[in-house]
Amino acid sequence: MNVDLFHAAEFVGIVAFAVSGGYAAVRAGMDWLGVLVLGVVVAVGGGTLRDVLLGEQPVWWVRDPQQMIVALVTAAVVIVVATLRPQTKPDSWRTVLYADAVGLAAFTITGTSIALVHGVPGWIAVGFGVITGTGGGVIRDVLVRRKPLILVGEIYALAAVAGGALYVLLRETTLDSGVAAAAAMAVVLAIRAGAMRWHWQLPHFPERHV
Amino acid sequence: MNVDLFHAAEFVGIVAFAVSGGYAAVRAGMDWLGVLVLGVVVAVGGGTLRDVLLGEQPVWWVRDPQQMIVALVTAAVVIVVATLRPQTKPDSWRTVLYADAVGLAAFTITGTSIALVHGVPGWIAVGFGVITGTGGGVIRDVLVRRKPLILVGEIYALAAVAGGALYVLLRETTLDSGVAAAAAMAVVLAIRAGAMRWHWQLPHFPERHV
Amino acid sequence: MNVDLFHAAEFVGIVAFAVSGGYAAVRAGMDWLGVLVLGVVVAVGGGTLRDVLLGEQPVWWVRDPQQMIVALVTAAVVIVVATLRPQTKPDSWRTVLYADAVGLAAFTITGTSIALVHGVPGWIAVGFGVITGTGGGVIRDVLVRRKPLILVGEIYALAAVAGGALYVLLRETTLDSGVAAAAAMAVVLAIRAGAMRWHWQLPHFPERHV
Repeated sequence: MNVDLFHAAEFVGIVAFAVSGGYAAVRAGMDWLGVLVLGVVVAVGGGTLRDVLLGEQPVWWVRDPQQMIVALVTAAVVIVVATLRPQTKPDSWRTVLYADAVGLAAFTITGTSIALVHGVPGWIAVGFGVITGTGGGVIRDVLVRRKPLILVGEIYALAAVAGGALYVLLRETTLDSGVAAAAAMAVVLAIRAGAMRWHWQLPHFPERHV
Repeated sequence: MNVDLFHAAEFVGIVAFAVSGGYAAVRAGMDWLGVLVLGVVVAVGGGTLRDVLLGEQPVWWVRDPQQMIVALVTAAVVIVVATLRPQTKPDSWRTVLYADAVGLAAFTITGTSIALVHGVPGWIAVGFGVITGTGGGVIRDVLVRRKPLILVGEIYALAAVAGGALYVLLRETTLDSGVAAAAAMAVVLAIRAGAMRWHWQLPHFPERHV
Repeated sequence: MNVDLFHAAEFVGIVAFAVSGGYAAVRAGMDWLGVLVLGVVVAVGGGTLRDVLLGEQPVWWVRDPQQMIVALVTAAVVIVVATLRPQTKPDSWRTVLYADAVGLAAFTITGTSIALVHGVPGWIAVGFGVITGTGGGVIRDVLVRRKPLILVGEIYALAAVAGGALYVLLRETTLDSGVAAAAAMAVVLAIRAGAMRWHWQLPHFPERHV
């Protein structure tokens, strides 16, 4: 992947997931530091999981801490906005969902790309895209004790699978890597946003309580 | 451990935990992709935890992805069966429990064995057996928001401790490693199945709510 | 950090978190083995997370298993005490909280110190202190399905941030490392104990249910 686009995508993903984690903390009634912590954990969680599974240690934010600063600043902005505009709160879960979709798109493609660079087979690289894209959100949902969004019903992980697979396929053509990444991210975002807007669902089973 | 038996045990464990994870997803009302994801995560979760703690990275399913395929196919079969035979659903938690017991037996012994190969002291190797055998199930229970099975009351982790300890002891004799593994797995399965059948419990404390 | 004090602090942290994990298991109605497992997991969880993120593998308790024994013995003592003195149970969550505070103080400083030894930038080392100090408690709360203590309202992670930052600053002076560690631990403990005693809170947001 083109280095500049790669960094731009990671930047967007970090900001988006820090917003998603920060707002989830606001909604869960956490304090200011909790908002910072959850914003950071969600922003770097998926990439951290990817690095640990690949054996890329110390994990990237130790070697390249400026993205941690981006996450902290973003979460601080969430605190300010949520404090100044409490009336916007009823919609804040919607904000979380859209920020989450942008982060999903960005991190799915950077995760797939990094796994390919490590020489991982293409379809396993798609799995690393899914892990990188969804890992932070899963950690967020476990910590605020919500049912993980990845299980909620509207299409979620499928968007990551589709985008990751498209990226792997496009990389085997002569297409410019930046174009491939942009197209694949657009596909993830379009599928996920469409799923939220029109309630697209895969067939699912009825919930049962024991 | 004999290589063939080792692979057979891992195969059985992968299938059993993919069934366990897949059915847990069915019961939690997840969609088809969620069943695939949870089946795979539960199937490879314990071994992944073991590899990361030992520093065996990239983790085994990156180097040896065919077990991932086994998990995916198994979870796909769960989808088909759960769709075609919804009337079997009331018993599906029982199915999860028995599949879980088989996976527990298989992975406890492969985990203990791999830790011994890494030169880990015997009693710590038993701990790695417990981690490998119970890790996937703990992740499953956290994700579907059930109380972890390992804490539920009927004997669970004790079966893994007993089987792992037996395996370590038998490996210090001149006994064939395949025989040692088979005996140890049988012990885990017998203890866990007996605990489910006759409700064997260790002494436990009354639950309190804050 | 002075090696003896370092070991003493880790010992105190192991005991404190094993008490915290063991009592949380008692309160959750777990059986005897569950108390041992949760005591051990909470005692070594934060340090394990730190080692994995730094790439220090196999993780420390594989190389240095005597701390595992300390955790097991401590959890066994919890079982005995909780069995013999069930009438003390109404206060046992308080016991968990104070044990947790001592563990937080000890592990925050050992975690910060180890990260500095790895050449991690100072403010990221504070993050490793927070991860080491709070990681075990977060795992405990997820497993017993409580809202993570780190999010509960009274000042928690801030105590770790303050103590870790103080330690990093003092290490840049000519101050003896043992004195620096002792001072920083005292600060963590004082802030956390004060927060519990006088209900110090950071500003927080009202909880909302979707």
